[in-house]
Amino acid sequence: MSTFDRHLEKLLEFLRIPSISTLPENANDMVVAADFLAKELKDLGFANPEFKWAKGYESHPPIVYAEKISDPTNPTILLYGHYDVQPVDPIDEWKTDPFDPVVDNSAIRGRGSGDDKGQIMTHLAALHELQQEWGDIWPINLKVTFEGQEESGGENIEAWIQEEETKTLLKADVAILSDTGFATKDTPAITYGLRGITYFQVDVRLGSSDIHSGEFGGGVLNPAHALSYIMTKLYDIETGKVLVPGFYDDVIDVREGERKKLAKVPLNEEDFYKDAGNVAPYAGESEFTLKERISARPTFDINGMWSGFTGEGAKTIIPASAHVKFSTRLVARQEPKKIGELISNYIDQIKPQGVTVTTTVIHTGNGVLVDTNSPWVQKVASSLARVFGKEPVFDRIGGSIPLVALMKSALKLDAVMFGYTLPEDNFHAPNEKLDVEQFKKGIEANKLIYKSFGEQS
Amino acid sequence: MSTFDRHLEKLLEFLRIPSISTLPENANDMVVAADFLAKELKDLGFANPEFKWAKGYESHPPIVYAEKISDPTNPTILLYGHYDVQPVDPIDEWKTDPFDPVVDNSAIRGRGSGDDKGQIMTHLAALHELQQEWGDIWPINLKVTFEGQEESGGENIEAWIQEEETKTLLKADVAILSDTGFATKDTPAITYGLRGITYFQVDVRLGSSDIHSGEFGGGVLNPAHALSYIMTKLYDIETGKVLVPGFYDDVIDVREGERKKLAKVPLNEEDFYKDAGNVAPYAGESEFTLKERISARPTFDINGMWSGFTGEGAKTIIPASAHVKFSTRLVARQEPKKIGELISNYIDQIKPQGVTVTTTVIHTGNGVLVDTNSPWVQKVASSLARVFGKEPVFDRIGGSIPLVALMKSALKLDAVMFGYTLPEDNFHAPNEKLDVEQFKKGIEANKLIYKSFGEQS
Repeated sequence: MSTFDRHLEKLLEFLRIPSISTLPENANDMVVAADFLAKELKDLGFANPEFKWAKGYESHPPIVYAEKISDPTNPTILLYGHYDVQPVDPIDEWKTDPFDPVVDNSAIRGRGSGDDKGQIMTHLAALHELQQEWGDIWPINLKVTFEGQEESGGENIEAWIQEEETKTLLKADVAILSDTGFATKDTPAITYGLRGITYFQVDVRLGSSDIHSGEFGGGVLNPAHALSYIMTKLYDIETGKVLVPGFYDDVIDVREGERKKLAKVPLNEEDFYKDAGNVAPYAGESEFTLKERISARPTFDINGMWSGFTGEGAKTIIPASAHVKFSTRLVARQEPKKIGELISNYIDQIKPQGVTVTTTVIHTGNGVLVDTNSPWVQKVASSLARVFGKEPVFDRIGGSIPLVALMKSALKLDAVMFGYTLPEDNFHAPNEKLDVEQFKKGIEANKLIYKSFGEQS
Repeated sequence: MSTFDRHLEKLLEFLRIPSISTLPENANDMVVAADFLAKELKDLGFANPEFKWAKGYESHPPIVYAEKISDPTNPTILLYGHYDVQPVDPIDEWKTDPFDPVVDNSAIRGRGSGDDKGQIMTHLAALHELQQEWGDIWPINLKVTFEGQEESGGENIEAWIQEEETKTLLKADVAILSDTGFATKDTPAITYGLRGITYFQVDVRLGSSDIHSGEFGGGVLNPAHALSYIMTKLYDIETGKVLVPGFYDDVIDVREGERKKLAKVPLNEEDFYKDAGNVAPYAGESEFTLKERISARPTFDINGMWSGFTGEGAKTIIPASAHVKFSTRLVARQEPKKIGELISNYIDQIKPQGVTVTTTVIHTGNGVLVDTNSPWVQKVASSLARVFGKEPVFDRIGGSIPLVALMKSALKLDAVMFGYTLPEDNFHAPNEKLDVEQFKKGIEANKLIYKSFGEQS
């Protein structure tokens, strides 16, 4: 068996474990998957792989932790991955069994092949090959955390990482994560920006119960009207702007430097609107490009809204209350808690007479912006360029990864985010896959990355 | 047994039938209640009381129809009432059994005592006494329709009344309804105005399914924002005005004549806001009085609204769609279908780019304004004044009674609406009651009304 065939076999073995973290019936599979990784790490010479839980989170899937410290004066890398996978619904749409993975000419097909088991295996396979080369004493120290709850909230690792003992345990020079992918089929990418988030609920209450619109209409303020009014005072759909004074104070203007960087990230606008569900284009903040608007600018979206009668037909009531959940994605210097106070206070100022308005901040998550000039980022970039024959683009993504923000706040660690999956790999959907060539080259690239990390600069 | 005690016994017998029209398990009770009325009418000398259904509505509760024509040249009165009642939830809040009615010093207590069985009995009891006086030949002709679906849609009678055969059958000079009540404990009222209604649903669609707000936020128009925008373009909470051009064109300005009439209708503003569910006052159209706003002015209310995630916690999606149901109460010359087109067209004009907006008119109902100078209204007014010692006020109510509009459009009949219940009688709520004194005096007043109708003027 070739070395690559050995890696492929290992990945298939890993993919056969149905480690769906959201489903209680798969609880035991979580432990099986964690145990698989612990054994792999042991084979790589890692000292005592252990299962870790934050205090009070012992019923959650374990975090697999292991470290290999050859020389404390060498650079120390923290590697993160997750062994849990998404559910497989709708199962009818799968062309192959999600947990009986197959390899054809082009791809490895099965749940978790891309997100994130295949990506974990690009690292373990690279380390396996480097072990042959390096023997027992490595030029880098490695600390590894593989969690089992990335697809279902991540509570265990988020609590664990903030414990004092963990902060000491995970001391490192840089963190690397392969849970992102290529920008297009040919374009490697390093993600350097994630947006933060502040998530709100606003409850508008009129009275104690729904009332007759014939009897009371015209005499009371309809809470759903009041809610619509508040929402249009917060956000202007015509300019795409948040209207709360001070909201943009801490936003870095992308036009002052990042525009060129982001312009290099391929984005097919037609595909974007197709992927959104065959959506019509929206101008929004028209002074920014679409790429800038979805990654480097703050956004403001209603996530849900409800009030009164929502059944079939007609019911002539004035609702007792109206409710909205909305969230704003924030860019790096915007402080989510501060934005929470800013918007809550503004709602208090503009709320109309005649109803009671309560604003709650449901949660916040910090944004992340990594310095692309750091030697770690540069080493990853040049390794990717060598293996893939093309310079990676530096990308900001619109989403939020709370763990990466926590690595920065709790561990003072910058995270370099890169990976080998392609946009068409069907993450979280039926027929998830990982391109065989990407898997192979990913292993090569990771070898170069670890080697370059070991070269003192 | 006194004559009044006999009336009371009859009413209690009627109240014991749990004729809740919305509950399938009470289907047989509907027939029992209808049969009770048919027997009463037969005892009063009405010819062949019959059960009537519109074609295709034979599974609905029957309409009890009967007539007593003494002389076709005499005035013919159409009497309407309904024998169905509201459900009794929440049952725990009843102090007596809703279907085991009791009479104490002040009130008859039970479901239907006020709405509308007790009011029907004020008419049947009056006719019982008049029968003793008049014998078989009456100075008026009476046509009676008692329906069993007023609390659950009224589809049967609404379809029936529009059939050609029914139009001939129900030919009359005036219709009377006792399904409204006093303005306050001491103030009789004749309702001369009902508002019309146009009921809409607007569906705003972005794409085929909910999408990730991190991935797509900033690049697409959030449909819930679009919906809020549309609603604030239709209605201004600060002035209480509908913003659709042309909306007020056919509104009669109450300041030009009716202001004085409506000013006589007692309305305790504190009670109004308390009855609304302890609601804070709302200025709305501040150039009109509260009474004018809730009865003589058109209104615009959101009845329900829904979009995206409405569960506990947070979900970071952009909803695929957002929906609203809203309705506008219309005053007499506003044509509901025309208003439906006006508002639908306006939404088409203002709808933003980036989403699909569909407006549907779910239903319409005409408003009613009865000439208070008609001899029928004047005869009812003077009878009420004689029995209750106080001139009745002429009231407009904010609600819509589609049947009354249909009587006008299909039968060309004006309806005189008056009744004996009090605002505190707990209609549609636990502990419904009817004041014993009101029941007694209501019978007296109805006798005078029928007598005066028989006097050729």
